[in-house]
Amino acid sequence: MAFLMKSLNNISRCQAAYRNLRVESDGLCPCHHAFVLAVGRDPGRSQEELARELCLNKSTVARALNHLEENGFVTRRPHKDDKRRLSVYPTERLISVLPEIREVAKDWNDSITEGISQSELDIFRSVLERMEQKARETVERQEAAK
Amino acid sequence: MAFLMKSLNNISRCQAAYRNLRVESDGLCPCHHAFVLAVGRDPGRSQEELARELCLNKSTVARALNHLEENGFVTRRPHKDDKRRLSVYPTERLISVLPEIREVAKDWNDSITEGISQSELDIFRSVLERMEQKARETVERQEAAK
Repeated sequence: MAFLMKSLNNISRCQAAYRNLRVESDGLCPCHHAFVLAVGRDPGRSQEELARELCLNKSTVARALNHLEENGFVTRRPHKDDKRRLSVYPTERLISVLPEIREVAKDWNDSITEGISQSELDIFRSVLERMEQKARETVERQEAAK
Repeated sequence: MAFLMKSLNNISRCQAAYRNLRVESDGLCPCHHAFVLAVGRDPGRSQEELARELCLNKSTVARALNHLEENGFVTRRPHKDDKRRLSVYPTERLISVLPEIREVAKDWNDSITEGISQSELDIFRSVLERMEQKARETVERQEAAK
């Protein structure tokens, strides 16, 4: 199984390289695309919810959101029912770059899945989703054991 | 296909979190495990070959190797036939941490593939390898188009 994470991480790094080559939005590092897509998909979530969705620790998420806020891509406001909780919203600037970022993501997906049959992709998806669930549980177990 | 890179990147980030929780080698950031495994697997390769294998740009690889050399994990020596080419070798320190890093990688793989049948894993592997190949070609095409 040694192939597994090597290939998976290589695809992930290739995508990062591809984004760097494709997107040229001022003040938006391609390393923040995952945040932009997550905030655009579901506005108003807390930093903690974003950290959970993206499998990142809270300080990494806070740093990325600081950068995105300074560059005018997100705003953070206290939640109406819980003032300690910060909800993250997209700005017009974020909304204006979303179509390009989604197009780059779609072109990438189309390119790397070209020639792979639908039935193979269905099995791939099913395995990948179970692996993601197991990956999240494995990290949670390891955190609890600390 | 929007699920694809989201799940794939989440598994990759979960692995990084797991490594952070598991490994405690002085001076070795879990972010450098891929380099340690690659240098340990095949000593004497050039920085350019490592960059290609790991789908990273040369400056990122040079920075990581500087850090690993300063902390005593690798040495770099001019290639005997081409003095401009630097070959990267593991030190005894790298070799001494390899078993732990390989064990953490194996535990992770075992945990995220638990309960997935061999026939599903075979298809998953076949699709993943074609995707990696396509990912590399897509980046090369995009670089050529720049």
